[in-house]
Amino acid sequence: MIAAAPGLHAPPELRARLADLYAAYDDALGEGDYERWPEFFTEACVYKIIPRENYDSGLPLALLQAESRAMLADRVAAIRKTTLYAPRLTRRLVSSITLRAIEAAGMQLAASFAVFQTMLNEPSTVFLCGRLYDRVVEDAGALFFAERLCVTDSTLVPTSLIFPI
Amino acid sequence: MIAAAPGLHAPPELRARLADLYAAYDDALGEGDYERWPEFFTEACVYKIIPRENYDSGLPLALLQAESRAMLADRVAAIRKTTLYAPRLTRRLVSSITLRAIEAAGMQLAASFAVFQTMLNEPSTVFLCGRLYDRVVEDAGALFFAERLCVTDSTLVPTSLIFPI
Amino acid sequence: MIAAAPGLHAPPELRARLADLYAAYDDALGEGDYERWPEFFTEACVYKIIPRENYDSGLPLALLQAESRAMLADRVAAIRKTTLYAPRLTRRLVSSITLRAIEAAGMQLAASFAVFQTMLNEPSTVFLCGRLYDRVVEDAGALFFAERLCVTDSTLVPTSLIFPI
Repeated sequence: MIAAAPGLHAPPELRARLADLYAAYDDALGEGDYERWPEFFTEACVYKIIPRENYDSGLPLALLQAESRAMLADRVAAIRKTTLYAPRLTRRLVSSITLRAIEAAGMQLAASFAVFQTMLNEPSTVFLCGRLYDRVVEDAGALFFAERLCVTDSTLVPTSLIFPI
Repeated sequence: MIAAAPGLHAPPELRARLADLYAAYDDALGEGDYERWPEFFTEACVYKIIPRENYDSGLPLALLQAESRAMLADRVAAIRKTTLYAPRLTRRLVSSITLRAIEAAGMQLAASFAVFQTMLNEPSTVFLCGRLYDRVVEDAGALFFAERLCVTDSTLVPTSLIFPI
Repeated sequence: MIAAAPGLHAPPELRARLADLYAAYDDALGEGDYERWPEFFTEACVYKIIPRENYDSGLPLALLQAESRAMLADRVAAIRKTTLYAPRLTRRLVSSITLRAIEAAGMQLAASFAVFQTMLNEPSTVFLCGRLYDRVVEDAGALFFAERLCVTDSTLVPTSLIFPI
């Protein structure tokens, strides 16, 4: 169940539905089941990985940008086909998901995340951390991400950044 | 309160009870109160720490395997008696606990975890991360882990791995 | 929604209110909005960052200690004015928040945390991890931290420790 910002009226049912959306997303990515990743977004959507420095300066430069479910699916196909990257596992932890506002354009949420990476025959290390800024909408009775901005604390993002956050 | 997979009917009371089980387990381990650890499992149970590589290949080789509450208690006694290991603290973070299925054999849940280690007079470092695959059952009105598989992303697990996850 | 210790009667409304307090605190700190940090505490309060070694030995020596909302505000002013520290971002993850007891002096909660640090043009690294021990009270219909002890696993806390946890 998702927590809500002070003074925001958020019924328990809505909180539980949002929690289930986030859990299903995290579960799919936790299993490396990237083919399911686009399903959590609306047909037209915004997905960006953008360093904090650019985000705070209003610079549009993103490390990764997709504007539709089809572009996300292309991204997954690229991950599956690439042979340039050494085998690795990524592990995501998400904390303090907060429903900040309920607006006509959707529900605004924020959370903190850390991603760990494990290369073959190496120990696990910190890969990235930062904040998620999400807009969630309802479509035909289900909830979807209309926007997910992954704002990374580090500007120096490793070149191996090909996996969904 | 635990999130549930899409389409799974999970009443709020059950979600809260599962959340309390996980919280009590994490609280006991967070306090280093390992003597309480076996209490969270059924009398006959499965507890394994197994590298992802072996888990995905169906290889049975586990880094640690216990099949009863008594074996878990033995493990704790061994931790308390050992003088081979330098003093250290372990810190566990658990994220995105998801109730995936409710079956006759129990409730299936999954989560992601990271464990940090702190040696005396050293900074904290990443120790392990991975996924938890749990089966929870009800016995005499209380919930217990009948199975907990801790699947580690790294195959190179440090030899100091003697603490419960 | 916050989990509760075994046998503790904690109504869903209270659990949700506590979750919202923790989420609002984490959200403010996640945004680096430190000016809001003192608002989450009672006028007279206890905030300490203390190494596990000292905490377990009953030694009073804390790395940071504040006993009122005004002292917390002073701390924030110091952070804003200092020019001694290189620019950095801190990222907090909090896990397994557990309501342990409801007493006349307030509600006792515990949680685990990890803090990551990112210096300009460097990758993110583990900074600190440990346990939070909180006492939360109700005042004029709202919940506040009357006490937050941040017990760090490492005794060697980096000197750059100027940010709220």
